[in-house]
Amino acid sequence: MAAPIEFYFDFSSPYGYLGSTRIEALAAKFGRETTWRPILLGLVFQVTGGRPLPELPLKGEYARRDMARFARLWNVPFREPSKFPIPTQAPARAYYWIADRDPALAKRLAQALYRAYMAEDRDISSPDITAEVAAEVGVDRGAVRAALADPAVKARPRAETGLALEKGVIGSPFVILDGEPFWGADRFDQVERWLATGGW
Amino acid sequence: MAAPIEFYFDFSSPYGYLGSTRIEALAAKFGRETTWRPILLGLVFQVTGGRPLPELPLKGEYARRDMARFARLWNVPFREPSKFPIPTQAPARAYYWIADRDPALAKRLAQALYRAYMAEDRDISSPDITAEVAAEVGVDRGAVRAALADPAVKARPRAETGLALEKGVIGSPFVILDGEPFWGADRFDQVERWLATGGW
Repeated sequence: MAAPIEFYFDFSSPYGYLGSTRIEALAAKFGRETTWRPILLGLVFQVTGGRPLPELPLKGEYARRDMARFARLWNVPFREPSKFPIPTQAPARAYYWIADRDPALAKRLAQALYRAYMAEDRDISSPDITAEVAAEVGVDRGAVRAALADPAVKARPRAETGLALEKGVIGSPFVILDGEPFWGADRFDQVERWLATGGW
Repeated sequence: MAAPIEFYFDFSSPYGYLGSTRIEALAAKFGRETTWRPILLGLVFQVTGGRPLPELPLKGEYARRDMARFARLWNVPFREPSKFPIPTQAPARAYYWIADRDPALAKRLAQALYRAYMAEDRDISSPDITAEVAAEVGVDRGAVRAALADPAVKARPRAETGLALEKGVIGSPFVILDGEPFWGADRFDQVERWLATGGW
């Protein structure tokens, strides 16, 4: 059986959010599984010299327009968050804590967290908000709060980001499909073509 | 009549090259004209804080793979130039010098220059090579060499880049369609959709 398609994203990345709304259907269309891997883009930027989009002169303005336009094109509910970007340790920690026991539930949590931040302007960098969103998908809020204080849980996103960097992951979203890397929601059409043809 | 579609590019940009192979057919499909505007990406980077792709850790490696894969997907002849990036004053100057008198010829020159650099590994940063390529599309080589030494011709690409920056042009290729900006060969599908629908 083919290896799962690896889907990397940062919870503060609008393009990652866009990717998250399509990756499951795309994989399912070709009978493939996925693994979702939240990363901390700030750590990636330390290696690549990247910077958050809003800090970039002119590019920031363009990106704001582009991401809203892209979301409209894909019919994805999007409202530019009033605080952007945000640190994403809390949602990433909650994700991995659940993913180890129930990957499908963890994906539902990731989708709910993205929606909360990108469509409802809820600040998921707060452990309280992350726990609240977790409760909305059926996870005990107190258990999430306790897990978020656990040293092993706290260390996980950083470790996962290190593993991702070793695989060449340099942005969000980032897909690795049978060893082939694709960066950006704007490469999803190429991911689909690659799935359909086996590469070119 | 609708305004021409503005197509901005740097002669050292592989993604700009990709865009140059499609923009004319795309515009023609919707009965639209184009204006081509070479820019100097180095001057843009001074404003946006950007850097040439090969200088970026990890991103450079990814970009090399992505541009070659993208070119194969579009069936565009591409061989990574042995010298990359290059300064593009010479080809940009030759372009504008001709464009003022014969825009159609200038586009043919731009296409020939791109092909020479991106498919045949000829170093078009050299005024000699630029003049040689110009001769291949029917422009007198000696006249090109003389023009490239003219102070007004020499100043033109810098001035055009300044005008482009004022319009928010921050990369290559960059399309402005009825006031709407699109950055990247990977936005050409959106450009086409915008042309077909009038926007969304």
